[in-house]
Amino acid sequence: MRVIRNIRQMQKIARTLQRAGKTIGLVPTMGALHEGHASLIRACRKNNDTTIVSIFVNPIQFGPSEDFNRYPRPIGQDSSLCMKERVDFIFHPAAQEMYSAGFKTYVDVQELGTRLCGASRQGHFRGVTTVVAKLFNACMPDRVYFGRKDAQQALIIQRMVKDLNIPVSVKVMPTVREKGGLAVSSRNAYLDEGRRNDARVISQSL
Amino acid sequence: MRVIRNIRQMQKIARTLQRAGKTIGLVPTMGALHEGHASLIRACRKNNDTTIVSIFVNPIQFGPSEDFNRYPRPIGQDSSLCMKERVDFIFHPAAQEMYSAGFKTYVDVQELGTRLCGASRQGHFRGVTTVVAKLFNACMPDRVYFGRKDAQQALIIQRMVKDLNIPVSVKVMPTVREKGGLAVSSRNAYLDEGRRNDARVISQSL
Repeated sequence: MRVIRNIRQMQKIARTLQRAGKTIGLVPTMGALHEGHASLIRACRKNNDTTIVSIFVNPIQFGPSEDFNRYPRPIGQDSSLCMKERVDFIFHPAAQEMYSAGFKTYVDVQELGTRLCGASRQGHFRGVTTVVAKLFNACMPDRVYFGRKDAQQALIIQRMVKDLNIPVSVKVMPTVREKGGLAVSSRNAYLDEGRRNDARVISQSL
Repeated sequence: MRVIRNIRQMQKIARTLQRAGKTIGLVPTMGALHEGHASLIRACRKNNDTTIVSIFVNPIQFGPSEDFNRYPRPIGQDSSLCMKERVDFIFHPAAQEMYSAGFKTYVDVQELGTRLCGASRQGHFRGVTTVVAKLFNACMPDRVYFGRKDAQQALIIQRMVKDLNIPVSVKVMPTVREKGGLAVSSRNAYLDEGRRNDARVISQSL
């Protein structure tokens, strides 16, 4: 397993793989990997010659009052999980590698991003589509894997891929849940036992 | 020379060329080809194994009061010019192939598109960057050729390519001028002799 931190280097590797006729699968993540990510990685490995996991906590998808700074970044644990799951490449760029001085280009899916979750998180989905477009250009995947847990995100990315003719196949995989029914999420780390119990009520009542 | 009207077919051809190690050059145009385009095509042929000329009058870069309907579309003449210049592929999709029902995704370069020409042509550059991003995904070029005549457009596209990490090299080529100094342009067809003389004054006084 190799960790790549530079966009051009990642592109060079991807291009070489493409030219060799190898298929590339990408699992885009913000790290703090859990069983949900692991299930995406397994699906990816099954159907692609090469598996890339990107780990990047994307500043432009966090609102000013959101948890960008305290979002968990356990890179050591993430590497171990990727090693165990036999990932080929971790793409782990720094923020200044992804957003250099003078950055001004955004990819925006209109309407879909302003409803539901987007209504209370202004600019969130524009940040997601922009970074995902960048990750596609960096890693050049044939297939990309997302969890159905983030249903609106998956829908918006499918729309972007179709509208911009991005040559990638979007795979949306089933939500992985804890025993009590709570969807596995990196942000569950914020919940104490009481709140975790409260959260279970949602999936249980559905 | 082949004329391709379908995005998936264009992508298939481009992917096959890439896998065979061939370089692809793209000259994006709205047709009504003239000597300026011909010079781009020649530069493209010189440095790439395959030359694609896209011909697409892009509805989303025209304002409601602009000349979308009367923009010249002499496809027969354009084909002849491309044949003569030994173009390999014309990519000539229909509007409904490029913008199918439910289209909602735009690529926007902030600030740069609202000044100069953009100040009086609201949404124009957003239309340009969106279609160019789509053409890149359809044709997968290694190099793309634009004329310096459309200086603001060239600048904005260079910014987009850098910001989104699009794996293409943008070549901006010198403006081609008529004998009197007027920059060659498809829209010069709108000028009668008097206005053509008036227009010459600009380059002559510069």
